[in-house]
Order: sequence, then structure tokens, then C-alpha cells
Amino acid sequence: MKVFLVGANGQIGRKLVELLGSSSEHSVRAMIRNPEQANELEKLGAETVVANLEGSVSELAEAVKGSDAIIFSAGSGGSTGSDKTLLVDLDGAAKMVEAAEQAGVDRFVMVSALQAHNRENWNEKLRPYYVAKHYADKILESSSLNYTIVRPGGLLNEPGTGKVEASENLGRASIPREDVAQTVLAALTEEHTFKRSFDLISGDQTIQEALKNV
Amino acid sequence: MKVFLVGANGQIGRKLVELLGSSSEHSVRAMIRNPEQANELEKLGAETVVANLEGSVSELAEAVKGSDAIIFSAGSGGSTGSDKTLLVDLDGAAKMVEAAEQAGVDRFVMVSALQAHNRENWNEKLRPYYVAKHYADKILESSSLNYTIVRPGGLLNEPGTGKVEASENLGRASIPREDVAQTVLAALTEEHTFKRSFDLISGDQTIQEALKNV
Repeated sequence: MKVFLVGANGQIGRKLVELLGSSSEHSVRAMIRNPEQANELEKLGAETVVANLEGSVSELAEAVKGSDAIIFSAGSGGSTGSDKTLLVDLDGAAKMVEAAEQAGVDRFVMVSALQAHNRENWNEKLRPYYVAKHYADKILESSSLNYTIVRPGGLLNEPGTGKVEASENLGRASIPREDVAQTVLAALTEEHTFKRSFDLISGDQTIQEALKNV
Repeated sequence: MKVFLVGANGQIGRKLVELLGSSSEHSVRAMIRNPEQANELEKLGAETVVANLEGSVSELAEAVKGSDAIIFSAGSGGSTGSDKTLLVDLDGAAKMVEAAEQAGVDRFVMVSALQAHNRENWNEKLRPYYVAKHYADKILESSSLNYTIVRPGGLLNEPGTGKVEASENLGRASIPREDVAQTVLAALTEEHTFKRSFDLISGDQTIQEALKNV
């Protein structure tokens, strides 16, 4: 699959570039805001495309044209404030969904956050962020696309274990970013995850097993 | 109609309380966050109900139960920052829609903003606010409710003229808050506005005429 990656410079995104760049099954086109980011990502095996989540849908549709799938792992980050949460995490994601529909890219895997679908379980300190993720996910779910929404728990920088738990509703727990990236990669082609959304934390199943049961 | 008003302490909301409170056709229940706000609104002819847009859907459903219609004219205001824009203007509005569905209150009139449905025409300085309004409107439009979305232009404190222009797409222009309130009131029972969304600015038609042509 030709995979278009949004958020390649994030921590999960960087791992996805490495995995996709060294894969024999897939190739990766990384969306970057700034041409200066190209060199480093190309060394990891990615093609790069300059485009901006704060730009227009038609610009984004042009960027994704010809891809087979989109992975959205972009986030405005904790330091930029809720203006960017609205513009990037919500509107940026929704524009990407529209761009995918316009360009005929049917497969869309979203990296969301544990329990983003249940207001009752949102982390109080991160409520504005959860609002943005909640509605971005809803927009993807109500689109015409073949989506998968992966909602990982607290993200760790530890090495991955390859063992996870995936289910519609899980309690608060954590997971290494590396395992999130491996799960997103495996989900791309795993039909059991088509049109499904699920929480993801560390567990005791292999990623393949876990994805077959979501 | 028993009208449940969200945002009664806003500038348009206050005018709606006055209009509804002195109407022979309608009665008004004003939602307030703080019991201390009750006295002033009750003097204008409103019943008051204490509830909070940052509370749960079930709390809001309890508050709206028994009403015939909801008018949503709440806004977090320009001074509170985008955290509140996400929590109130977007999530608060969406929760109110869910509460209306749960409580069986079918009629819902939303006060939105000119061109909130067209990203290309958003005021650059207010983009985060427009993102919130855009998705709140979309959620209402995709609900099961009998909605009307009124998208006024730049709001003025001048006296109303009773003359407006209403259409799906209008250029940037302004309108007195009093005319917005009168239009919202007229829309409540005007069947031409059912399941419709429209821009609203000052013009040369009476409100009744304008609403018959949206």
C-alpha cells in the first residue's frame, strides 16, 4: 500500500515512518509543513509532500491523491494551546477526511485517545483536547471512508513488547508508542478493524490476535 | 410553546427573555449556571432552571424535560480563551442536542455565525471560534431534531429595524442583536425554517417575508 502519513514528525509518526520505510509491503509518503523537514524523513525511507493541515481541503486532496491509505497521527501537542487544538486536532483532521473523500483514498486510520468516545471518562486536565478528538473521530465515523480508529492509553517511550489489549472499552492504562505504531501498521490491512474503533493498552495478546477480536 | 433558553445572560439571550417573557404565545425557561442570576431573569418574565453546559447530558436532559423547543444562544465569549470555546460552544452545544433527543424535545433553534458552514469565509482572527460553531452546527444538522440554524453577521447593539435579509449564503455584513432575537423568535414556529440553516444580515424584507424564502 502507498501510505500517506500525517504527523510524521510526531513521536508515533516517526516510528511509523521507520516501520513503513523498511517494509516490503508498503511505501510511505510523509506530509511535512516545512521543506527543511524532508531530508531527515527521506533518510528513513519516506517520500515527502509539503502541505499544511491549516490549509484548504483542495490543497490536502491534491497532496493525498494516488495514495491507498491515510494514517493520521498528527497532534498540535500540549504546548500550543487550545487555538491549535481546534485548528489542527479537530478541523485539520476533518479536512483530511474530506480530502480523502475528494481524492478517492478510501482507507483511513486515525490515532485517537483512550475513551475519546465517552465523555464520562475524559481526563479532567485534558478535556479540551478530548473534545477535539471526540468530534474528529465522530466525523470520520460518519464519513464514507473505510476507517479504523485506534484509541491508545497513556503513551510511553519504553521499547514495545508486541503484546497489547484492544477492545471497545478499556480502563485507563498505558502503552509504549512503539506498540501503538506496530498496531496501526497491522490494522492497515486487517479486515477485522475495518469500520471499527477501539481502545488500545498494553496486554498479553499479540497484536495480530488482539486485532482479530476487536 | 414552552421555550427552553440556553444563554439567557448573553446579549441576544437577554433580548429573547424579554420577547418571550412578554409574549402571549410562548413561555420561557431560562437555564442559568448560578442561582444568583435567577432574580433578574424572573423579573423579565422567565422561569429559571439551574444547570451547566459543562455538566452531563443526563443533567441537561433533566433540565429540558417538558419543554417544547430549545433556543441555543450561549457562547463562551471572546475573553475566556479556546479551552472554553471547545467545552461550551462545541461540546456544550452537542450535549444540548443529545439532551434534547433524550428528553424528546424536538424543536431546536441554534444561533450560529455568518458563513460558519464555509471555511473559506471565516474571519481569520476568529478561526478557532468558527471551528467550534461549524462542528456544533453539523452535529445539530445530523441529529434527529427539527432544527433551524440562524447564522447572523456582525452583531450590533443598535435598535432593531425589523428589516432583514436571510439566505443560505450572504456576504459579510452586520445586523442589530434585536433583529436577530426577533428572527429567532419568528423562526420558532415558521415551518419554512424547519430543517434549514441560513445566514442573516440587515436587509429590506420584513422578518416574516425573509423567513418564508429561506
